[in-house]
Amino acid sequence: MNIALAQLNFHIGNFEENTSKIIRSVQQAEAENVDLVVFSELAITGYPPRDFLEFRDFVDKSLQAINKIATYCTRVTAIVGVPTYNSAAKGKPLFNSAAVLAKGKVQQFIHKSLLPNYDIFDEYRYFEPNRHFELVKIGNKKVALTICEDIWDVEENRLYTINPMDELIKLEPDFMVNLAASPFNYQQAARREDVLRKNTLKYNMPLFYVNHVGAQTELLFDGGSLVMNSRGEVCDVLNYFEEDFRIYSLGEIETVKSKPVLQRPSEIALIHDALVMGIRNYFEKLGFKQAILGLSGGIDSAVTSALAAEALGHENVYNVLLPSPFSSNHSLTDSVDLVKNLEMPHDVIPIEEAFKSMETSLKPLFKNRPFDVTEENLQARIRGMILMALSNKFGYILLNTSNKSEAAVGYGTLYGDMAGGLSVLGDVYKTQVFELARYINREQEIIPVNIINKPPSAELRPDQKDSDSLPDYDILDRVLYQYIEKRQGPADLVAMGFDEKLVKRILRLVNTNEYKRYQTPPILRVSDKAFGMGRRMPIVAKYLS
Amino acid sequence: MNIALAQLNFHIGNFEENTSKIIRSVQQAEAENVDLVVFSELAITGYPPRDFLEFRDFVDKSLQAINKIATYCTRVTAIVGVPTYNSAAKGKPLFNSAAVLAKGKVQQFIHKSLLPNYDIFDEYRYFEPNRHFELVKIGNKKVALTICEDIWDVEENRLYTINPMDELIKLEPDFMVNLAASPFNYQQAARREDVLRKNTLKYNMPLFYVNHVGAQTELLFDGGSLVMNSRGEVCDVLNYFEEDFRIYSLGEIETVKSKPVLQRPSEIALIHDALVMGIRNYFEKLGFKQAILGLSGGIDSAVTSALAAEALGHENVYNVLLPSPFSSNHSLTDSVDLVKNLEMPHDVIPIEEAFKSMETSLKPLFKNRPFDVTEENLQARIRGMILMALSNKFGYILLNTSNKSEAAVGYGTLYGDMAGGLSVLGDVYKTQVFELARYINREQEIIPVNIINKPPSAELRPDQKDSDSLPDYDILDRVLYQYIEKRQGPADLVAMGFDEKLVKRILRLVNTNEYKRYQTPPILRVSDKAFGMGRRMPIVAKYLS
Repeated sequence: MNIALAQLNFHIGNFEENTSKIIRSVQQAEAENVDLVVFSELAITGYPPRDFLEFRDFVDKSLQAINKIATYCTRVTAIVGVPTYNSAAKGKPLFNSAAVLAKGKVQQFIHKSLLPNYDIFDEYRYFEPNRHFELVKIGNKKVALTICEDIWDVEENRLYTINPMDELIKLEPDFMVNLAASPFNYQQAARREDVLRKNTLKYNMPLFYVNHVGAQTELLFDGGSLVMNSRGEVCDVLNYFEEDFRIYSLGEIETVKSKPVLQRPSEIALIHDALVMGIRNYFEKLGFKQAILGLSGGIDSAVTSALAAEALGHENVYNVLLPSPFSSNHSLTDSVDLVKNLEMPHDVIPIEEAFKSMETSLKPLFKNRPFDVTEENLQARIRGMILMALSNKFGYILLNTSNKSEAAVGYGTLYGDMAGGLSVLGDVYKTQVFELARYINREQEIIPVNIINKPPSAELRPDQKDSDSLPDYDILDRVLYQYIEKRQGPADLVAMGFDEKLVKRILRLVNTNEYKRYQTPPILRVSDKAFGMGRRMPIVAKYLS
Repeated sequence: MNIALAQLNFHIGNFEENTSKIIRSVQQAEAENVDLVVFSELAITGYPPRDFLEFRDFVDKSLQAINKIATYCTRVTAIVGVPTYNSAAKGKPLFNSAAVLAKGKVQQFIHKSLLPNYDIFDEYRYFEPNRHFELVKIGNKKVALTICEDIWDVEENRLYTINPMDELIKLEPDFMVNLAASPFNYQQAARREDVLRKNTLKYNMPLFYVNHVGAQTELLFDGGSLVMNSRGEVCDVLNYFEEDFRIYSLGEIETVKSKPVLQRPSEIALIHDALVMGIRNYFEKLGFKQAILGLSGGIDSAVTSALAAEALGHENVYNVLLPSPFSSNHSLTDSVDLVKNLEMPHDVIPIEEAFKSMETSLKPLFKNRPFDVTEENLQARIRGMILMALSNKFGYILLNTSNKSEAAVGYGTLYGDMAGGLSVLGDVYKTQVFELARYINREQEIIPVNIINKPPSAELRPDQKDSDSLPDYDILDRVLYQYIEKRQGPADLVAMGFDEKLVKRILRLVNTNEYKRYQTPPILRVSDKAFGMGRRMPIVAKYLS
C-alpha cells in the first residue's frame, strides 16, 4: 500500500485555490499509483477559519468543494479536513471532520474528539466533540484516523477525560493517520515529535502525520509532517516552512533503516525561518508585493528589514530614514550601510520641519509646559504618518518593528512606532533580536556590527538610552519570560531570585499597558505565548498594577 | 426567611476594593436581619477576568478574599462568585464557582455546569463543567443554586446536552438562586426575563437572580437583577445601570401582588444609558477624569461629545475643532453651538499649516501623483496626532467617534479618526446614531438640528459626501445588520430582496477591512454582535472579498 502525505499552504476561505491545490495533489497521487493521499486538518477552509464558521454559506461552500474533490478520486482514497454539520438536536452545530473520499464520492466522515480551547485555539466555540469511534477501511487495511489534538492526550495532558486512540485501538487498526494544524513555536517541533513517538510506542504501529504549512496572519505553521514507524523511529520528515508531497510504501516503513537523526536547527534559526515565511505569506495572501519600514539605526528595524528582504526580495523593501534633531550621526550612517549591504531602496526624510510645525500649532495650547513624553511621541507619530502616507500613495504594507520586550512594557508610541500592518518582531524579546542579528550575519556582515554593538536608544530626546527608563534587557527579558510564557506570579519571581521592587515595577508596566497592545498590528507568533489572540487580558483591571 | 440581592459594580482584579464592597453589603445584611445575601457571578474577581485566570497568584488571591469575607458572615449566609481549583487529575484546572459562606467559614462550593463559549464568552478556556448536583441548605430551606448560563438551557438552546435544573429539581429544592454576569445588549433584558420566566414556570418555584452591573472595558453589564415568583411574575427589578441592594421576604414573594409591568425603555434609551455607563466606568476604573475628542461638525462626534458630557460632567469633555481647507463653515458654527449648549470647553486648531508642511515634506517622494485617499488620510492623521499630543500633555483619554457602519466598511483612517482609547459608537449603526441624537434632544435641543439634518460628509476633499463612496445608510445598515448580527450569506441577502451587486460590494468591504478593525480601540458593546472580542475573524483570508 502506497501512502502520500500532501503538506500544503492553504488560504483561509479561498475555496477555489484550496480546492485546485488539493485536486492537483489527488491527480499526482493517482498518476503515481498511490492508494491513500492525506491532507491536513481543515484543509478545505484553511486553518483557523474562526468565525467564518458561523456562516452557513461558508460551511456549505466547504462541503461543495469536498464533493467536487471526491469526483477526482477514482482509484486513490483521499482524506481531507473539512467542517461538517452536527445533525443531532443538541450540541454545537459543527464537527471538525476528516472526509474520506473514494470512488468519486464521500465515503465517510471522521470527527475530532479533543478540541483545543486554550492559547490561540477556540475550537470549542464552534465544534461538538466526537464520541463515536470507528476505523476507516482502505483496501485490506484498517486505519485509525484522528485529527491533531486527538493524539495529544499523552500522560502529562490533564485537559481531556477521554483518549480517542485508546478507543480506536480496541477496533484493531493497522496504522495511524493524523491530520494536523499544529502552529509553530520554537519548541513545538521537538514537542510534537515526542508526542508522536509516545503514540507509536504505546499503540505499537506506524503513524502518518500531515501538518499544515504556511502563515495565516499571525499564526505560522511549520509543516514538518512525518512518518514514524512502530518503534518510534522517524522514517522521514517533510520540509519545514514550505509545501511538500511525498509517497511512502507502508510495507517498507517498518523495515527501512531509520534516517539518521538530523541535528535539529537552533531556536534562532527556526525563529528566523518562521518569520521569513510569515512575512512572505502575509504579503502573498493579501496580494501585496512591497514593504515599507522606518529604519532608525537601531537593531529592531535593521533585523526587520533584513528579514523582509529575504522574504520579499531586497528590491521590494523600501527603507525610509527619518532622522530628528535627536538622532545620532551613526544612526544615519549605520542605516545606509545596511541598505547598501542588501541593495535595498531607501530615502531620507528629516522630520525636523514637520516637528517644528506641529510644535508651533500646539504651542498656544501647551501653555509653556516642559518637553516631556508628548514631544517624544510626537516625533514617533510624525514618522508613522509619513510612512503611512507613502504606504497609501504607493501601495506598500508598513512593517512594524517593535520587539516583544517593548510591547510588554509599553515602551512605544501608539500610532507612531507601534503602527503597521504586521508586527515582525512583536514575539521576539530584545535579547533574541540580538541573537537574530548575529544569525543573519552568520556568513557575512549584513547588519552592520555597530548596530549590534551600540547601546539601544529610542533617540527621542538628547542622549537618551533605553536603560534610562527600563531595566537591562537581560534581566527584563528573563522576568518577562517567566511572567508571560510561564505565568509566574510575583511571589514565584521573587523566589527565583529577582529583586522584589524590580518585579513589581515590571509587572505593573506589563499590566498597565494592555491598552496599547490592544491596538497593535497582528504579531507573528514564534513562542508558546505571544501577544495577540493567544493572550486575552482585560484592559480595565487592577491586578499587579 | 429574608433574602438580599447585592448588585454591585466590581473592578477586575481589584481584590481590595471588591472585597471591601462585598463586606460592606454583608455587614448591611447582618444589620438588617437578612438570612441570605447573594452576589453576582465571579464577584470577587470582576467579570470577565480572562487570562488572569491562568495565574495561580490570581486564583489564590481570589480564594484568600473569600476566606476573609467568610469571617464577616456570622449570622447571615453569603453566596459569592469565585474561581476555584479543580482537584481532579483530569479536566480543566478551574471551576467557575459560588462559595457559600456562613458561620465564619466557607461551607460549600457549587460549580457552574454550562459554560458559554461563544460570542464574547471563553469560559471553556478556563473552566471544567460541573457534573455533580447538590442543593444548598440555608436554615430549613433547600436552595437550587446555579450560575448564569446554567438556567439558559431552555427549549431553543441547542448548545448543551445536560440541564442542571433538571438534575437539581430531583433533590426537591424550595427556591432557585442564580448568580449572573449577563452582559447588556439592547435586546438582552427582554430575553433574560423570558428565560427566567420559563424556569419559574417549569420548576414551579421562585427565582432570585443577581446580575453584575457596570462596565468592564467594552462589556457593559446592565444589572436589572430581579425576583420572580413561581407564577412567572416579576416581583421586583433592581436598578438598571447602577448598583443596588434590596431585601425580600421569601414568604411574601408568592403572596404580594405582582408589580404592574413597567413600559420597557426603548432600544435607543437603553443604548443611551448603556453608553453613558460605559464611558463613565472606563474613566473611573482607569483613574481618569477628562476626555478629549475632535468635533468635526458631523453627527458622530456630536453624539459622542453629548454622551461624554453626561457620563463625565460637561466641564470634563474637551472638544477640539480641527478645520481643514475642506471643512464647511457650518461645521465650525454647528460645533460651536453644541459646545455652547452643553457648556463644554473647546479650542479651534486649524490643520491647514500642518497639512501644507506635511505635503511639502512628502512632495519630492510623491512624484506628482494626484490628490487621492493619501491626502484624505493625512488630514485625519494630523487631527489624530494633535488630539493625542493634547491627550499626552494633559492626561485626557481620547474618545473615538467612529460608528459601526463606518467600522464595518472601513470608512475611516487608521491612526487618524480611528484613534482613541475607547470607541463610544463603534457598535451603533449610523441610522441608530441619528436616533440617538434625537433621543438626546428629547427635551431640548442639545445637538444642533443642523448637525442632524445635513447629509453626512467626511469633508476630506471638496464637496465630498459619504454617499459618493457608500450606499445610502438606510440600505447599508440593513445589509450590515443581516450579515454581521444574523450571519446571513450572500444568497440569503439576495433572497431578502437586496440587490446582488450591492450585497457583493458591501460584503467585500466588510471582509477586506478586517485589518483596520484589528487595530481599533475597544468598542462599547450594545448589540449581540459587536466588533471586538465577540467577533473573531481572520485578516488574511479570501472569502466574499
